[in-house]
Amino acid sequence: MIATERVRRPADFAVARPPRAADSCVLCAGREAETPPPRLVVPDGTAREPWRVRVVPSKFPVLRAGGALERRGEGLYDLMAGVGAHEVVVAAPAHETKLGDLPVATLDELLEACRSRVLALRDDARLRSAAVFMRHDPDAAGRARHPHWQVLATPVVPREITDEIEHARAYHDYRERCVFCDMLRQEIDDGGRVVAANEHAVALAPFAARVPFEVWMLPRRHAAAFESVGERERRDVAAVLRTVVRKLDRAVGDPAFDLALHGAPFGDAESPSYHWHVELLPRLPGGTATVAGFFVNPLPPEDAARFLRDVPD
Amino acid sequence: MIATERVRRPADFAVARPPRAADSCVLCAGREAETPPPRLVVPDGTAREPWRVRVVPSKFPVLRAGGALERRGEGLYDLMAGVGAHEVVVAAPAHETKLGDLPVATLDELLEACRSRVLALRDDARLRSAAVFMRHDPDAAGRARHPHWQVLATPVVPREITDEIEHARAYHDYRERCVFCDMLRQEIDDGGRVVAANEHAVALAPFAARVPFEVWMLPRRHAAAFESVGERERRDVAAVLRTVVRKLDRAVGDPAFDLALHGAPFGDAESPSYHWHVELLPRLPGGTATVAGFFVNPLPPEDAARFLRDVPD
Repeated sequence: MIATERVRRPADFAVARPPRAADSCVLCAGREAETPPPRLVVPDGTAREPWRVRVVPSKFPVLRAGGALERRGEGLYDLMAGVGAHEVVVAAPAHETKLGDLPVATLDELLEACRSRVLALRDDARLRSAAVFMRHDPDAAGRARHPHWQVLATPVVPREITDEIEHARAYHDYRERCVFCDMLRQEIDDGGRVVAANEHAVALAPFAARVPFEVWMLPRRHAAAFESVGERERRDVAAVLRTVVRKLDRAVGDPAFDLALHGAPFGDAESPSYHWHVELLPRLPGGTATVAGFFVNPLPPEDAARFLRDVPD
Repeated sequence: MIATERVRRPADFAVARPPRAADSCVLCAGREAETPPPRLVVPDGTAREPWRVRVVPSKFPVLRAGGALERRGEGLYDLMAGVGAHEVVVAAPAHETKLGDLPVATLDELLEACRSRVLALRDDARLRSAAVFMRHDPDAAGRARHPHWQVLATPVVPREITDEIEHARAYHDYRERCVFCDMLRQEIDDGGRVVAANEHAVALAPFAARVPFEVWMLPRRHAAAFESVGERERRDVAAVLRTVVRKLDRAVGDPAFDLALHGAPFGDAESPSYHWHVELLPRLPGGTATVAGFFVNPLPPEDAARFLRDVPD
């Protein structure tokens, strides 16, 4: 629901934050011995820092790599063991780094590190899907504030992805076209909800935005699986992501946000109906309201997109 | 996911709260002139208070009663006007009233007031479904802390209800039985997740509880629509609700919670596969965590149920 009775101007969502004392955590450069051994390291050629991106198993995994799935029933219920992989993709050696402060090349390396881990985890026959996401919270303390992405590979597909896939398939059954490709075409023609664009990627405020300043980033080329991203395409997605995060910072003051990469499950990588993309949902004070399960968004996406377009990055 | 690595003892979720200054709001007795005219009033026979339950249109409705739906397309998108009814069911005349302090008879009147409003709103051909819910937040200020339920009647069915209905229908297609009736039978036989029960209603911690102390309350008799609840059944649902809320208060100190009545949409009241019920989800510090769309619950529902059973109400 776009609740126009409750409409506020885009700038009203801005958050003021007092400066904070410098912090440090186990994800910082110099404390590498405090994490489990890395799965992947992107070394820093300049030798100013030991590395630029580093992937380590989570110290607090919600799922464990070892053991069998042990699928079983208990009456009408279904159970399985908590098998999976939970990894942390450290986005920068320094604690006080904003995602938008990283150069496009580093964001590109970050995406490539995620892709490389997804490809490795895909070989585990027990696993069905890998979620790649980042939770940003500038008010958090310790490890939660060090910029990092997470990869969670699971033996089940998350409900949100299943829902998207099923609805996209129903659309494709009817029209024999990808709904995301159609959406991209309509949004580019219309222009009103486009936030940023380059040769291979587009950032837009979705038509039914759930929260103020929700932004989706999509590759222009149809591909169901994130793993199939091409090099120039990956760099362009990194570039629009950087633009969007920097614009958000300027527009409403480094808001907390959830960023999630939505891609096809391992078995569905060639789907003609699904289209991988990135969803960014800011968590702004007074921004996220659900009433009886409906998202009530006080800021029309056209206003959010216009405001973000006009803000420098 | 039940994350047993992160398991905490049930009592660890307890919240301590400093005493607060008395507050007042437009929902309080004596300020009736500040709300729109009531849709329904349950007078207080004792004349100590002017009324016990009072239903008024919301002063901040997310949907408006007037006008046509104006269904239309915009390219591949669908739009309609924000038509609906948003009403507030004031649960007590006094601001500082906990739901669990109300007698069963008043909670029963509260349910009957909701039922009566749902029946009235069902006559509006534009509307498809009515959500009945309560958001409890002991840390809120003003109107949000005065105990009240809300009724939101909408021209679309909320996604959460549609999902439940579709999955229950798929189960029924296969087994020709209601999945909720089957669940009730299994839970009553097992007993380990039952929190409270009486002749017509059962409260239980659901097998796949999403958050610590999640509790569902179901009528034993199969019925898809809340509106079809019988008198003795309604009273028994009110009684288990009271027991659950009082036990939660004793167990973890008046936690914030979301309570929602899940019932069949208007067109599906006779469904053999759906079963109306009440879901209560506490919002406890460290209790609600989602990772990549999965709920990660650190408290197994069996432990929550045992703890709640053992706490007096």
